[in-house]
Amino acid sequence: MKIPTDIEIATETTMLPIKNIAEKMELQEDSYELYGKYKAKINSHELKKMSNKKNGKLILVTAISPTPAGEGKTTTSVGLADGLAKIGKRAMLALREPSLGPVFGMKGGATGGGYAQVVPMEEINLHFTGDFHAIGVANNLLAALIDNHIHHGNILNIDSQKITWKRVVDMNDRQLRHIVSGLQGKVNGVTREDGYDITVASEIMAILCLSNNIVELKDKLRQIIIGYNSSGDPVTAGDLKAEGALTALLKEAINPNLVQTLNHTPALIHGGPFANIAHGCNSILATKLAMKYADFAITEAGFGSDLGAEKFIDIKCRMADIQPDAVVLVATIRALKMHGGVSKKELNKVNKDAILEGLPNLKQHLVTIKEVYGLPVVVALNKFETDTAEELELVKEYCLSNQTEVVLSEAWEKGADGSVALAESVVRLANQTNDFSYVYDLTDSIEDKLTKVVQKVYGGNGVTFSKKAYKELNELNRLGFSNYPICMAKTQFSFSDQVSLIGAPKDFDINIASLKISAGAGFIVALTGSVMTMPGLPKHPASEGIDVNEDGDITGLF
Amino acid sequence: MKIPTDIEIATETTMLPIKNIAEKMELQEDSYELYGKYKAKINSHELKKMSNKKNGKLILVTAISPTPAGEGKTTTSVGLADGLAKIGKRAMLALREPSLGPVFGMKGGATGGGYAQVVPMEEINLHFTGDFHAIGVANNLLAALIDNHIHHGNILNIDSQKITWKRVVDMNDRQLRHIVSGLQGKVNGVTREDGYDITVASEIMAILCLSNNIVELKDKLRQIIIGYNSSGDPVTAGDLKAEGALTALLKEAINPNLVQTLNHTPALIHGGPFANIAHGCNSILATKLAMKYADFAITEAGFGSDLGAEKFIDIKCRMADIQPDAVVLVATIRALKMHGGVSKKELNKVNKDAILEGLPNLKQHLVTIKEVYGLPVVVALNKFETDTAEELELVKEYCLSNQTEVVLSEAWEKGADGSVALAESVVRLANQTNDFSYVYDLTDSIEDKLTKVVQKVYGGNGVTFSKKAYKELNELNRLGFSNYPICMAKTQFSFSDQVSLIGAPKDFDINIASLKISAGAGFIVALTGSVMTMPGLPKHPASEGIDVNEDGDITGLF
Repeated sequence: MKIPTDIEIATETTMLPIKNIAEKMELQEDSYELYGKYKAKINSHELKKMSNKKNGKLILVTAISPTPAGEGKTTTSVGLADGLAKIGKRAMLALREPSLGPVFGMKGGATGGGYAQVVPMEEINLHFTGDFHAIGVANNLLAALIDNHIHHGNILNIDSQKITWKRVVDMNDRQLRHIVSGLQGKVNGVTREDGYDITVASEIMAILCLSNNIVELKDKLRQIIIGYNSSGDPVTAGDLKAEGALTALLKEAINPNLVQTLNHTPALIHGGPFANIAHGCNSILATKLAMKYADFAITEAGFGSDLGAEKFIDIKCRMADIQPDAVVLVATIRALKMHGGVSKKELNKVNKDAILEGLPNLKQHLVTIKEVYGLPVVVALNKFETDTAEELELVKEYCLSNQTEVVLSEAWEKGADGSVALAESVVRLANQTNDFSYVYDLTDSIEDKLTKVVQKVYGGNGVTFSKKAYKELNELNRLGFSNYPICMAKTQFSFSDQVSLIGAPKDFDINIASLKISAGAGFIVALTGSVMTMPGLPKHPASEGIDVNEDGDITGLF
Repeated sequence: MKIPTDIEIATETTMLPIKNIAEKMELQEDSYELYGKYKAKINSHELKKMSNKKNGKLILVTAISPTPAGEGKTTTSVGLADGLAKIGKRAMLALREPSLGPVFGMKGGATGGGYAQVVPMEEINLHFTGDFHAIGVANNLLAALIDNHIHHGNILNIDSQKITWKRVVDMNDRQLRHIVSGLQGKVNGVTREDGYDITVASEIMAILCLSNNIVELKDKLRQIIIGYNSSGDPVTAGDLKAEGALTALLKEAINPNLVQTLNHTPALIHGGPFANIAHGCNSILATKLAMKYADFAITEAGFGSDLGAEKFIDIKCRMADIQPDAVVLVATIRALKMHGGVSKKELNKVNKDAILEGLPNLKQHLVTIKEVYGLPVVVALNKFETDTAEELELVKEYCLSNQTEVVLSEAWEKGADGSVALAESVVRLANQTNDFSYVYDLTDSIEDKLTKVVQKVYGGNGVTFSKKAYKELNELNRLGFSNYPICMAKTQFSFSDQVSLIGAPKDFDINIASLKISAGAGFIVALTGSVMTMPGLPKHPASEGIDVNEDGDITGLF
């Protein structure tokens, strides 16, 4: 039997008009705006209106350390929401929006897969409701205002060699990583080194996701540091009188987007900050709204629990004043084999030894979630066709011997039906009392915050600083940013800062290469090694296979 | 009495839900999609469905040669549509979408003014329904695919010094006019000279506006020439297998946008190609749909009748197989004074001599419209507060002595009421038989086409070619493009190619500096002098005055 592709499954499913979904949620007609028949934007003011309403349970979906084999966090999240609905619970998703870069590159979209998808997948994966375009243009207006200010006399004394604000494009375009701009004479700007990031890496993306309302949004935009003046002091977006226009550009983008799963479970898809140089979670507004509308709000955080979940907790939950009630840790047989040292092309062979070698990675995540974050956790073993019963049994036994719930998740193949066991486990866990805790306090020194993350979450010894980072540390303290939370930018493939140290490495230090302030978003980015903020396209980009027929139907998206 | 600003008038007016407008137009529910409560997109397939329906009259609004004093074409167009509605005619507008560049720069939006506006003005002027973002990202995907192809081995042998395809951004950003990209080593692309245009200048914008349907759109995208290979032969978007993905990105953007005037007259606002290096009219689809839905479709073309109207007729009408039934030529006392040599700050003084000096400019436009295009014309004298009765009378007499209808247009101050006289004149003229004619035949040689435009429309002697242009002319003939129409890129301020030759110059040649093929859009761009395709921001950009309050209400847009 031919297995249908994601877009085939998605387009063969009958969606409900989003109006019907909104009615089911008891939304008033003036609380949302339609964007076509199957997308809507919920007004951000709704949150304030519902301030007295009790919050539903918040479920965080995270994963073991990612491998090239993939883990299926979004698919599991979507399946879980549908599974909860199937057992009679009011469930709602709060997920990230996909970036166009991966859609045309290699990774494909970010709307789940198989029978656990959010739809309309082709619209969500292309422009959706324009949020990323709004963020991109706001980012680039600020960039234009900076160079324009210098061009027209530079009253603020901006040092053109110390501009930290880059332009962005929602595209994998390596050609733009390093450019020289403002060439060919004074009338065409000021010649300087420059470069592009992908839009999801813009600080404005992080700001949008961390703002509880439009006033906070404008305030954060105002505080963006765009670079430094000739005395070394920060120059802000506010100094350029930019925050009003930027907010105007973002006034629709701040409203969370409502869509549905294949099973008609409501889903808010909103914001998608880069999980390395930003915190990698969907917007605070979407998560909070989901908690108001549903008894179970399902959200996810980028990469593994060491990166995404830590930042979810220490940055997003703290700024939003919310906390998760239970955690789902997604693992796959294939990923565990890779953590056990098996190469990608050998993954289809039964290999219990490799799984045993890889399980310490799972364990380190479990220990962090339970003992550091203080939260109940269930392992969702995301089933692939190639998994054998004995391999699955091995992982189950391991979890049980570690006093951890474990269920098989068959969301991809069976949708809601394949997620009932997970849903039941989640309901049970979320009703337990928990011991939620941040990893560090904001009043801790920057060094202490970093050390706590490394020791408590990564299982390492501590941190070392490059000369550059040490200088930046002193500078951040001088400028009064010592009370900001930390946004770790570390490889997702290892608990350490070395990609090759898979599994659960011990006895390592994390070297902080650089410390940067995102004063608008409100966190200090700690870079460990170099972080790629502009991907490239592969030799045969996915775009080559995408087509549209005369009726406007798209094929080749995955 | 304080005169309210455009945005004050716009936001104080009660709009009808766009659904009601659609119902009034007898649109089926599945013929359009809502984008919020006051915007909709009409499915491009509607045109095919109505192929047997009789077309309404097509009215072209154009103007005398623009001056810094402004002429008010959009305001007059909106007023005319409302005026037609007021006298009981089914009228509909087909206008261009504004670019974000001028909105944050100096010029402001492009939604009319005073009591003759299309609304919601702040949404139309900001992201609207995302068409320009879609065009920008399609443009930039193609750019990324080019450099990516070279990076991965360059099978097509693209000469990196002969890449003609530029990246775009919807922003006035002089800093990006000339850049060097692909710096810092092989892994980061191929170092080459590069540069950005503003999004409206993208060939994809022109393509979208010149496509009758989605199949034509894809076909035109496939034919885009992105540069030349090492043998000097063109390399196309089709060679990069890009047309499917580009079409996917544009599949919503091709659907015309429905909004309303302050008086609830339906308006299609769709596409906005740069009026110099492209043809400067809204989309064929919008214009044709307006002709199906209404008895009078009002559209406009960029700049004066020498540029916009000529390209409207020779490019757009020809490709769309439509023709206008009457022309409105907008003139103002202030602009006529400037053509008579008065500086901008002296415009408020009564100066009949200057007007008499400026009137030959008006006359040259009239002669072209009547004798070359063969169309009936009415002069709409767009009234400003500072105009005196004797000045207005002078222009009226001049028109009448030239056997031309003339009416006072008070659209800005009085909306529909101020446009009834114009509406009545237009109805009368549009019902006359006319002698419509293109300026040249497609089978004319490129030299002959250019010469005919210069002699018949500009009133000049003929054309001369730069050495470069002459070489390009031979190359275009060799490549088989000799049957394409011409898209003149000339200063809008003069009939000649010299900005300073205001009024109605005689005895001049037009020097063709360069000839470029836009093989996708389907025309040859004839550049006369240098054309700016990336504006800059002024010392105090309009963005500084834009703000948003906590309810999301925008102020400072104009």
